[in-house]
Amino acid sequence: MDERTKKEVLNRLRSIEGHVRGIERMIEKDEYCVDVINQTIAVQRALDKVNSLMLRNHLETCVTTAIRGEESHERERVIGELLEVFETASSL
Amino acid sequence: MDERTKKEVLNRLRSIEGHVRGIERMIEKDEYCVDVINQTIAVQRALDKVNSLMLRNHLETCVTTAIRGEESHERERVIGELLEVFETASSL
Amino acid sequence: MDERTKKEVLNRLRSIEGHVRGIERMIEKDEYCVDVINQTIAVQRALDKVNSLMLRNHLETCVTTAIRGEESHERERVIGELLEVFETASSL
Amino acid sequence: MDERTKKEVLNRLRSIEGHVRGIERMIEKDEYCVDVINQTIAVQRALDKVNSLMLRNHLETCVTTAIRGEESHERERVIGELLEVFETASSL
Repeated sequence: MDERTKKEVLNRLRSIEGHVRGIERMIEKDEYCVDVINQTIAVQRALDKVNSLMLRNHLETCVTTAIRGEESHERERVIGELLEVFETASSL
Repeated sequence: MDERTKKEVLNRLRSIEGHVRGIERMIEKDEYCVDVINQTIAVQRALDKVNSLMLRNHLETCVTTAIRGEESHERERVIGELLEVFETASSL
Repeated sequence: MDERTKKEVLNRLRSIEGHVRGIERMIEKDEYCVDVINQTIAVQRALDKVNSLMLRNHLETCVTTAIRGEESHERERVIGELLEVFETASSL
Repeated sequence: MDERTKKEVLNRLRSIEGHVRGIERMIEKDEYCVDVINQTIAVQRALDKVNSLMLRNHLETCVTTAIRGEESHERERVIGELLEVFETASSL
């Protein structure tokens, strides 16, 4: 991962960790269930953004290298892997 | 789209059309809401499969051609487009 | 289902059927994969709206009746069913 | 929230926090992007389970009380709120 993406992803994950701790405190204080659920959904959205940043980096580096390379087997591998990520993420 | 994917995608879409008509009949016959909702969700899943087939074809043809080509602008375009599809589909 | 919801849901499903046929034509005319995928995603969103209308009706009728009723077994059944719908739909 | 659900939800959230920290370490060690993405998706699924537990509790307590109560305005409020949660979660 390039240094800029790495730094941004790490910052976002640390902020997500803090968000999860905040949700724990909401539960300890018996806050309204629907408010807690909405915060949990917000964390899931923040993780979507992290995935999107990592996927962009993956497409620009590993996928580009494999597809520009001469090994058809490796090209097929990265494409199959991308489809799996797509299928898993779209059925969250 | 290669002929085999095209044929498979068209068959699946025609079957999805029939499935949607079946749901209309369930509603006309006042069937239980939850049963109807489950059928609607099944149609959404069937559409996921169609998307996955088209995406595989897209990766193997347009994306591969663009990434193996010499125009960096075109490479960036297909990558940006893939990310958009990924973001839209994973936030369905 | 009350008559107004029934009519609205049926209208939406007929329009979705037409949308699916439109996608078939796009494929027959070899339109750009990404444009087709975006139309398929639009159909999935339209089905989300149909589900939401049916779920509102279900909550206002069957669920309300069961929860206001005196049979605890029936109350548990509708709640369990709602959770299943929620889990299935949120993992689309 | 009843004490048992509260305890289970808190345990799951603490484990999710640890999982997020594990993903940070994977990134610091430059592990393969697709492996990291798959871990992020696993965290999103774990959060789905947390939401489902909180929603069950909400249906069995607040929603049941409101629907069994005599204030139609309050009944409508909890139903509207449930639909919003459903719509937000199913479009993650």
